[in-house]
This record gives sequence, structure tokens and C-alpha cells, in this order.
Amino acid sequence: MYIMAINAGSSSLKWQIYDMPSETRIAKGLIDRLGKEDAIFKAEYDNGKTFKCQEPITTKEKAATLILTRLKSLNIVQRLEDIKGVGHRIVSGGEVFKKSTVITAEVLLQIRNLSELAPLHNNIEAYYVNVFAQLLPHATQVAVFDTSFFTSLQPVNYLYPIETKYYSKYGVRKYGAHGTSHRYVASRTAELLQRPLADLNLITLHLGSGASISAIAHGKPVDTSMGFTPLAGIMMGTRSGDIDPSIMPYIMEKEHLHDISDMITILNKKSGLLGVSGVSNDKRDIDEAAAQGNQQAQLAQEMFVNRIVKYVGSYLALLDDKPDALVFTAGVGENDQPVRQAVCEQLQHLGVKIDPQKNQVKGQEAEISTSDSPIKVFVVPTNEELMIARDTYQLTEPLIKD
Amino acid sequence: MYIMAINAGSSSLKWQIYDMPSETRIAKGLIDRLGKEDAIFKAEYDNGKTFKCQEPITTKEKAATLILTRLKSLNIVQRLEDIKGVGHRIVSGGEVFKKSTVITAEVLLQIRNLSELAPLHNNIEAYYVNVFAQLLPHATQVAVFDTSFFTSLQPVNYLYPIETKYYSKYGVRKYGAHGTSHRYVASRTAELLQRPLADLNLITLHLGSGASISAIAHGKPVDTSMGFTPLAGIMMGTRSGDIDPSIMPYIMEKEHLHDISDMITILNKKSGLLGVSGVSNDKRDIDEAAAQGNQQAQLAQEMFVNRIVKYVGSYLALLDDKPDALVFTAGVGENDQPVRQAVCEQLQHLGVKIDPQKNQVKGQEAEISTSDSPIKVFVVPTNEELMIARDTYQLTEPLIKD
Repeated sequence: MYIMAINAGSSSLKWQIYDMPSETRIAKGLIDRLGKEDAIFKAEYDNGKTFKCQEPITTKEKAATLILTRLKSLNIVQRLEDIKGVGHRIVSGGEVFKKSTVITAEVLLQIRNLSELAPLHNNIEAYYVNVFAQLLPHATQVAVFDTSFFTSLQPVNYLYPIETKYYSKYGVRKYGAHGTSHRYVASRTAELLQRPLADLNLITLHLGSGASISAIAHGKPVDTSMGFTPLAGIMMGTRSGDIDPSIMPYIMEKEHLHDISDMITILNKKSGLLGVSGVSNDKRDIDEAAAQGNQQAQLAQEMFVNRIVKYVGSYLALLDDKPDALVFTAGVGENDQPVRQAVCEQLQHLGVKIDPQKNQVKGQEAEISTSDSPIKVFVVPTNEELMIARDTYQLTEPLIKD
Repeated sequence: MYIMAINAGSSSLKWQIYDMPSETRIAKGLIDRLGKEDAIFKAEYDNGKTFKCQEPITTKEKAATLILTRLKSLNIVQRLEDIKGVGHRIVSGGEVFKKSTVITAEVLLQIRNLSELAPLHNNIEAYYVNVFAQLLPHATQVAVFDTSFFTSLQPVNYLYPIETKYYSKYGVRKYGAHGTSHRYVASRTAELLQRPLADLNLITLHLGSGASISAIAHGKPVDTSMGFTPLAGIMMGTRSGDIDPSIMPYIMEKEHLHDISDMITILNKKSGLLGVSGVSNDKRDIDEAAAQGNQQAQLAQEMFVNRIVKYVGSYLALLDDKPDALVFTAGVGENDQPVRQAVCEQLQHLGVKIDPQKNQVKGQEAEISTSDSPIKVFVVPTNEELMIARDTYQLTEPLIKD
């Protein structure tokens, strides 16, 4: 049984196809610059074959149709009817969706209603649900929510120290993000440790261009660094993370900004590694500039590590006991040896001993702590699409048996 | 030699008089509801005598004159000329003042110029400098800055992850607050430990209606929870502390607020313990309500402890080694046994062992950790006025000798 995992953005569309329940990935692909005349279509299949094309892909319908057409023409899938389930990454499930859910008309309406909490995402994702439902009418559509991993958070951690009416009336609370990634690496770390996830305390570090850190007790998150929106928490590629809110009116006055949304855009798009380094939002560019002596780039490196260390420290304190492991994932977490080294060295007196040799790894699963480290350290490449495929399979398979 | 310490607010004026260098406090007092017809004048002197009066005190000049008149009429001071120095608490020294400073006309101008960084404070404080300079023309006026203790912070900790121009052009950075209090308790803890402050790593917790936590390495602060303004950091009496900045435009839209300053006022005045509990900004009222079963009050208690624990954890990680001690001070820190108990218990696995019996102390110096606790815990009542008197004496005394 084939399961398709869809991860849609405003100008991109990522997809993967898994053969289930073996979890063999048979193809993956990406449309970039979607909406443009010079969009890019890429696919990988048959263990190493690639297909790439630059062409006009101006609508979401065209994008989805093109993927399905090429699945057949490239002989990836014989019959589209073999795709029994399509799992969609949905950014916000708000407080409505506590787990992955088969998409009915009602569910789709609720996803749309939650778009206020993820204005750049939920509506687009809901749109693709409709597109794929029309193109693959026989397949079960499943919603896999970025937020649902965090439904175990308690009010003490998900509420903000503000008037409670803002929560009760408007839903202002910490929802978290990257939940599917944190969930995957937590579950994979349990396999690597050969222990039940429910026995484990972990701190998972999803460090990509967006970045978040989660504290996991007995397999369930107790806190996470992202907040009401993905602006909060640690320093990111272009996002500031936590700041003193009073900075905003002060800068707005100085810069003659009259609309707070302009200020929020600055914090989302022009801050973080980019804002401090003045070089790039890409950690690799910053490392290169820093190596050539650019002091702002060096400062950006230091601040990035500093904010990670402080969040990990806060979660070490929040957990009732030493965690079993720290787990690094996503672009920076999987590939940036100096960041892992610097973070772990600063945590040495709290029980983290990194092995510099083992830490040479890039983009591969590895235990990178010394054998006597009280807290183990792992690199686990994330796989949100596999999580989506798994949930979709689990919800689709019983429906087919009926 | 008598030294007067002045701590002026918008509607209050606190003062103390010390005999130096013995550091004997000979009197202290407070004017409250200053500016009103029913202002309150209080003084304590002669080891236990008190004077209290409700009367119209409508101007700052009248307030200062009244204090000086009563110093004589109550026989606290024989001759006002014996007051050789007047030390003023100044909230913001920005990046200009790295230590306490004798106030010249130029210094006073700079203090006024920094009022942008402390709009509710610096101008009022500067005004009182003038008033006392006229009333006590023979006395040296000294400025003791709340921020100067934090000049040891490095850019990695005092800069925000935003474009660097906001720092270079407008001075947006972490300045910290309560510096005089953190400095006093750090120095007093060194005395209690009979070790040089420069050898000590400490985490100092100033928990009052405003609250901040500092990480101190080798006697100098490396980080502090308050930021560009005193809104940042942990949850406070009426202040939210850190929140996701994106909450602000969301609430503003929902509540039809058009001015971000209204939103900042909500975060400063209606949030924190007050906002969550709906009961009070005073922890004692909240404890009473919580004991009677008020769930919001209980939640406020939990959140307050939670935010403290997370900041202490982040500073445990930031310091290169286990700190020698945690130090609790200010109203809540000195008197709130359950908060100290809860914070320390949550940190037990990181080396903090509190002794519940020793923790019974209120408002008195005490070591409250067990004798085998890897990290000691102290209660040290703060004494900002003594710090102000000390600095003022040290700057005044050489001038007199000349």
C-alpha cells in the first residue's frame, strides 16, 4: 500500500511516497518557486534516479497534477489507485486536534477556522487537501498536525503570565511547532537506546532555519521553546526568538514605524543570525565569514550557541531528573559539528560529555557522547514525512479492511 | 560623617541616614502618596522610635524640605551640615555610567539625557538631585546606578538577536535592573562564606514585586533576566516577563487597541501574578486565595515558581561550573518560604538541597541549605540604601580630606 506525504508551503510543495507498512520510501520530490514561470520540479526515485525540470507551474492544481502525472510517467507508481492515503502536514491544530485525524468536510472546515493561528499555512494546506481529494478520490486524506505532539503540555507551561481572558477568549497560549520532528526523533532515540519511549526523559533540539527545543518527560513533552507562534524561543535564521517586548515600541518610534505588523515582520524576517551577522541567515555562510575574521559573524555564532545553552539549561531544571539524552536534529543539528561541540562543552559540568571524534558525523544517526557521559548525546536526522506516512497508514489501513 | 541615601519614585520618596564609616543606620523614612493632600510621612529613628503623619505634601521641594526639617526637629541630626553626602539611586546609567559617580552639572545632564531608557525614573531622580543640592549645598551629591553592576556583561549576553543597528544607533541592549540589590547580596554572601567575592559563582534571585535573577561568575554578573527594560525576564507582580512578541499584535487586533503603548501597559501593569490570579499582585494575597482553593491563584503560584526554575536552570548552564550559592532576596525572596522550597526542590537533581527547617526563616540572613548541599542556598535581606551610602561615602570622603 502506497502512502503519500505532503508538506505544502506558500511557494513550495514537498512530497514523498512510502510503501507501507515496510516504511520503504519509493520516491520523494519538491516543487520550488511554485506560482512562477520558472518553477523547479525535482524528484528522486528508484534508489538514486533523479528527475529535474524547470518549467512554469503557476497554480496549486497544476503542481499537484504534475506530480501525479510524473509518478506514472516515471514509472514510480503503476496505478494512482495504489496510493491509498495522503497525509498532509498541517501547521496548526490549535486546541482542537490532539492527534492525527482523517479529514472529513467538518475537519477541513476546522483546519480553515484555525488559520488565524497559522496565517501563512493552514489555508494553503487546506487548499491542497481539496486538490488531492479531487485528484485521488479513492485515497483517504489525513491531517498530521505540527502542534499535536504538544498537547501533553500543562497550563503552568503553556499559559503566559498575562490576563487569563486572553487565553479563554482568544486562545493565546503556547502551541509549539516542529512537533512532528520532535516526535520522530524522540521515538527514534528510544529505538536507538532500545528502551520504551515512555521511560525516557529527553531534550530534543530541532535546529534548522527555524529552531526549537523541547523537554520530554516519560516520552511526552512538558515544554517547548516555540510559543504562540514560531517567533518565540531561541535565535533562528531570520527570527529573533525571545526579546524584551518593550523593544518593539522603542524601535517603532525611532524608525517611524506605525504598524506593529511591520515590527513583527522585522523580528521574523530580518533578525536572528541574519540580523546579527549582516551576512546571511544560513549558518554555513556565517561560518565561512566568521572563519575569514568577520566579527559580526563570530558574534552571531556565539549568540546562537548561548541561546541554545540557556534553553537546554532551563529544561534540565524543569525535568525532574537528568535526561537520558540530548538529541540534535534538522539542518544545523544534523550537520553543524561546531554548534554541537560548543553547546555540549558548555553543558559539561551538568553531565554532558561529547566525544569530538564521534561528533565528526554529518547528517547521519550517531551517538556522539563519550561512553561514560551521564547524559547521552545523539544526532538523529529528522524525518517528518515518515511520521506523516506512519500516521496516515495507521488511520487508512483499518478503513480499507472494512 | 552622615550620609543620606535617597530612593525617589514618581509618588514616593524613601530615605535613610547612615553614620559612616561604621555603617550604623541612624534613621530611615518614607513619604508615600507624594503629590497628594493626604500624603503619608513616616520615620524610624533612635533604635525604635517612630514618627508618622498624614498631611498635604504636594511638591518634591516640599517633600525634601519636610524631611530635612524633621531630621532636626526629631533630633536625628543636630546640624544639617553634618550630612556630607547624598547618594541618589538612579535607575538608568545606560552605557555611560559604569560605576557610581559624583554628580556635576555635566553628569546631571547625562542622567537626564538617559531618561529615554527609564522614562518613569531618571527625570524624577535628576529633579531630586537639584532639590537636595539646593537644600544641602555643602553636601556632595552622588549617583548610584541600578544598571552599573551589569557593565561586566558581554555582547553575547547583552545584545538581542536583532539587527545590530538597533544597538549602535539607538542603544537597544540588555541593561538589567536591581543592580544595586544584586551587588549588595553578592557582596554580603561573600562575607557570609568568608571568601573573596572574586572567587565566587552565584545565582542571585531578587524576588520582589519586580523581580530579576542574575548569574554571577567570579564576582561579576554574566547575565541577568531583566532586559532593555524591567518588563523582561521572569513573571512578576504585575509584569508578564518574557512572552512571544507575536502575542501583542494578536491581542491588539482582538481588543481593538491601536496603540502599542496600551499593549505594553497591559504587560507592565495588568499581567504577571495579578493577571493570572485575578486576585492581587501581592504574593501574600495570592497565597491566601490559593489556600482557600482559588485555582487561578494556585496556577499563579505554580507559574511563578516555574519561571524562576527555568531561569535558574539557564544560568546553571551558562556558568562554567556549579555556583557556590543561590541567594534569595527582596520581599518574596526574603519571606516566602513556599517559593524558596518549591524552587529548590525542583533543582534538587542539579545539586540544590534545601533544609525545610532552616527555610522557616523570614526576613533574616540565613543559610537554608542542608550541610551537604553541593550548592548552598542563602536568604540575604537586601539593602540597596546601604550600598548607596557606601558608594557615596567612598566618593565623598576623599573630597572632604582635600
